[in-house]
Amino acid sequence: MNKLLRKQLQQAIDGKTKPLGALGQLEEIALQIGMIQQTLTPKIEKPALLVFAADHGLAEEKISPYPKDVTWQMVMNFVHGGAAINVFCRLNGIDLKVIDAGVDHDFPEGLPIVNAKMGYGTRNMLHAPAMSTEECDKALKKGAEQVIEVSRKGCNTLGFGEMGIGNTSSASLLMHRFLNLPIEECVGAGAGSAGAALEYKQRILTEVARKYNPSGPLETLVAFGGFEIAMMTGAFLEAKRQNMIILVDGFIASAAMLAASRFDSGLIQNCIFCHQSHEKAHSLLLKQLNVKPVLDLGMRLGEGTGAAVALPVIKAACAFLNEMASFDEAGVSEKN
Amino acid sequence: MNKLLRKQLQQAIDGKTKPLGALGQLEEIALQIGMIQQTLTPKIEKPALLVFAADHGLAEEKISPYPKDVTWQMVMNFVHGGAAINVFCRLNGIDLKVIDAGVDHDFPEGLPIVNAKMGYGTRNMLHAPAMSTEECDKALKKGAEQVIEVSRKGCNTLGFGEMGIGNTSSASLLMHRFLNLPIEECVGAGAGSAGAALEYKQRILTEVARKYNPSGPLETLVAFGGFEIAMMTGAFLEAKRQNMIILVDGFIASAAMLAASRFDSGLIQNCIFCHQSHEKAHSLLLKQLNVKPVLDLGMRLGEGTGAAVALPVIKAACAFLNEMASFDEAGVSEKN
Repeated sequence: MNKLLRKQLQQAIDGKTKPLGALGQLEEIALQIGMIQQTLTPKIEKPALLVFAADHGLAEEKISPYPKDVTWQMVMNFVHGGAAINVFCRLNGIDLKVIDAGVDHDFPEGLPIVNAKMGYGTRNMLHAPAMSTEECDKALKKGAEQVIEVSRKGCNTLGFGEMGIGNTSSASLLMHRFLNLPIEECVGAGAGSAGAALEYKQRILTEVARKYNPSGPLETLVAFGGFEIAMMTGAFLEAKRQNMIILVDGFIASAAMLAASRFDSGLIQNCIFCHQSHEKAHSLLLKQLNVKPVLDLGMRLGEGTGAAVALPVIKAACAFLNEMASFDEAGVSEKN
Repeated sequence: MNKLLRKQLQQAIDGKTKPLGALGQLEEIALQIGMIQQTLTPKIEKPALLVFAADHGLAEEKISPYPKDVTWQMVMNFVHGGAAINVFCRLNGIDLKVIDAGVDHDFPEGLPIVNAKMGYGTRNMLHAPAMSTEECDKALKKGAEQVIEVSRKGCNTLGFGEMGIGNTSSASLLMHRFLNLPIEECVGAGAGSAGAALEYKQRILTEVARKYNPSGPLETLVAFGGFEIAMMTGAFLEAKRQNMIILVDGFIASAAMLAASRFDSGLIQNCIFCHQSHEKAHSLLLKQLNVKPVLDLGMRLGEGTGAAVALPVIKAACAFLNEMASFDEAGVSEKN
């Protein structure tokens, strides 16, 4: 069945009025989406993007050049529609949902923020695991719930974003652990660390990494995860259960995807990698997964911006498969 | 004035709620478009794409694996809306116009094809220059006329595409001549030459290159150009005169841009390079121009498809500049 469909999809792609393979990566994406949806006429329906926000105890160690307050301030910016992710979602017809996974702030009632608060930020990993096992379990579940809700509304294509001062540190530690790579290769500039600040960040993370020896994805998230990362992990897993097209973008979302893929190794079949972050650790992560992202625009903002900007390219892949004429239909001669 | 505006644009970009430089190439595009339009609030209005089609006398030498009839057959495919460029223009709201610059076919009256026919294809360059000086002049003018017309309708963003069996050969010869590079480095697979066929193509083009020693862009187009390439060159020049945003895509369009930039060296300031073709000569051409294209999807189809697929990314660049909140507006703390 699967083999037959793959063959039929490839024939449909090859039969279009163009030289063989001439649409490059768009052809690979069309094939992938056809296989996900098990159809020769795949469709992107009601695309949505979930942004999970949370604070990090480790931010106390000043591993980010930005103050921790930026997390809640940026959530308010999302609410008012002024952040990059708002702009790109509006432009490309993506439904945006902001989830408070554990921001160190009490937001006023009545705002368009989903309250899934796990607390006022994680614990400082330098002194204790980021969260308890119970908390991690709960975060995974709450992440899944968000996906069930958008899926009920007819969304079949879902992107993920995040906001959390200090969360590149969590992502680095997860990458270090899941890919067995030295911490230095997993640590990047984040929102703007460089020189001495970057060395300091590497030193702190090395110290944190030495304190824990978790086995398995749950324990690893407990030790190093942020609430937004654990929730995103749960959301990835549910999106796979719902057989959605999953738009992966950015270093933090990719780290959550890594965690999720340790729970469900089939996850990656549904993932489209949207953008290669300027964050050098992200390039390495994608290389390890042997994937080539759709875009390489040197962005390093998070929020899911790469997924939102890449969506029209992914739509183009579906569109050519559905709408282009074949050589036969168009009466165009094939290669000699 | 220009320096002041550049500074103001950079300040507007840097003041947005994101780490400095975090939107990567989108920031460069926003700056470029702001400078083209001389405004802090640039806009893309009524984007259009012109596809120029023509035949090539050199196709007699079987330098393409496709029969020459494919040129007119593909024009009919454009007319019926079944080609890749139709699909991508529909998807991204781009007005598509197909121009017969010199196809070896009489199209029925009443079809949506602009008749700018220069003849039934160029002469075989192996035996005589592709066209006369008068023909080249006329083609340049006809290209400009197309641009004036779309500009009158309010279009300020224009992409270019082409169709013409054998036209990668013209593009290779123009590149060889304009960039002083060995012919082997300027010859690629085209619509599918490889191995012995590729060596044969290189041999033919080397022979053609030896026959002529043109000086200046007009003479070079006369010797090596196709009618669609000369017309596109005129269109590029007029688009610059109209101060449009010019979307450059593909090997053949890039070769026409090279020719146009020899007439007007300021042209490149208005050009956004949309896609790096899989054609290896195209990578080299872009490298020589020191530009990094917006997309790198491994496409090699021509028709302007890279420009059409890239437009939403370019729109995203304008959108963030116009719509994102600044740190001040959003009440978000800046870096420590």
